[in-house]
Amino acid sequence: MRLSVRGIAAVIEHTNLDPTASPDDIVRLVEEAERVGFHGVCVNPLYVRLARDVAARRVKVISVVAFPLGALPLDSKIAEGERAVSAGADELDVVSYIGFVKGGRRDLYRDDVEGFVSHFRREHPDVVVKVIADVPSLTADEVRIVADVVSGARPHFFKTSTGYAPRGTTPDDVRLLRSLLPGEIGIKAAGGIRSLRQVVELLDAGADRIGTSTAMRIIEEARRELEVGGCQ
Amino acid sequence: MRLSVRGIAAVIEHTNLDPTASPDDIVRLVEEAERVGFHGVCVNPLYVRLARDVAARRVKVISVVAFPLGALPLDSKIAEGERAVSAGADELDVVSYIGFVKGGRRDLYRDDVEGFVSHFRREHPDVVVKVIADVPSLTADEVRIVADVVSGARPHFFKTSTGYAPRGTTPDDVRLLRSLLPGEIGIKAAGGIRSLRQVVELLDAGADRIGTSTAMRIIEEARRELEVGGCQ
Repeated sequence: MRLSVRGIAAVIEHTNLDPTASPDDIVRLVEEAERVGFHGVCVNPLYVRLARDVAARRVKVISVVAFPLGALPLDSKIAEGERAVSAGADELDVVSYIGFVKGGRRDLYRDDVEGFVSHFRREHPDVVVKVIADVPSLTADEVRIVADVVSGARPHFFKTSTGYAPRGTTPDDVRLLRSLLPGEIGIKAAGGIRSLRQVVELLDAGADRIGTSTAMRIIEEARRELEVGGCQ
Repeated sequence: MRLSVRGIAAVIEHTNLDPTASPDDIVRLVEEAERVGFHGVCVNPLYVRLARDVAARRVKVISVVAFPLGALPLDSKIAEGERAVSAGADELDVVSYIGFVKGGRRDLYRDDVEGFVSHFRREHPDVVVKVIADVPSLTADEVRIVADVVSGARPHFFKTSTGYAPRGTTPDDVRLLRSLLPGEIGIKAAGGIRSLRQVVELLDAGADRIGTSTAMRIIEEARRELEVGGCQ
């Protein structure tokens, strides 16, 4: 795969979901995203309005919803997403409730995923919707059920992890999901991504977006390795 | 302190906030709470209605709000709490946003805490409100700011941790908080509480309630030590 620093930055969502992040931290996140050319910033709902207020229009504001447990009733998930859109979110990363899959309640899981996606597809067709499931917490059979339900719901992206799972996302996770999901559903890899090597391997495995809270370090690494090494 | 198994059970909130919990797990949680005589069950908003539907009236249903990050705007926190009350919650454990304290924005922290507490005090005076701050993530100075703001807001309880903090709650944490908070604000100790010894020490330090996801094990321990040992 032929990669440039600019190309890598363009698929990264510069992320700060830390519950100790201050308003100043979010302003800095946005400034870094503008300077480097990241796709956007991924923040908690609390900071959507602030991020949108200070960001240039080309920097997308991504809000998580029901993060990180996904353990809200559907009406609360939709209301939280609606408030984020009103505050200026361009994209919504909603956590689906995998306890339904683990408890054999595929019907409830489908209601949870389809209910959210269909609402925003209908009411806010310009808003990009990503459905998150913590793949590292699922068995292979459970991943198949999740992929099947998500395929039916047709969000814009499937996101592999909240980052609260017992391990990070691997290229094998992405390859499996790529084989299970229809081509029009993109894959956002997230969770434990801390090096350029991981980013390159995940993109190579089929990821379309990368979510990471160490994007600045990764970009510094990319500048050293790709520009100095002449691999562009 | 003179303790009985029944007395210990009565101050415990039997807790399952695991994002992989199935509906069956929640039904079992409620059944255990009824059988043992726990104060109530503490669940995610997703499961408030189910818990209320299957629980006897004397078992309180406690819902967390904005859990575990507290990173929602105030209107979303209130809306999530309102939905939980409509679904049958007797008590609301809301996570306050400690990033405001860490960022030197005591004004925003006060708006967050007072806004939630005053809304529910006014609109739902029978609902018990607990304000959560992750004390293990705070410096001593920050704990003082949190205690000061919470003292002004007057919730029914202060809850010491989400359980997602880097360490559990200690008797020293509880003693410090007890010295800082007015007597009418109770203390719910939570986070990393897994043994009878911890429960006894935390109660002795001034805690009024205990939140734990290993309540059944603690009660078995209490039955062995307090009943067989004749310490009642």
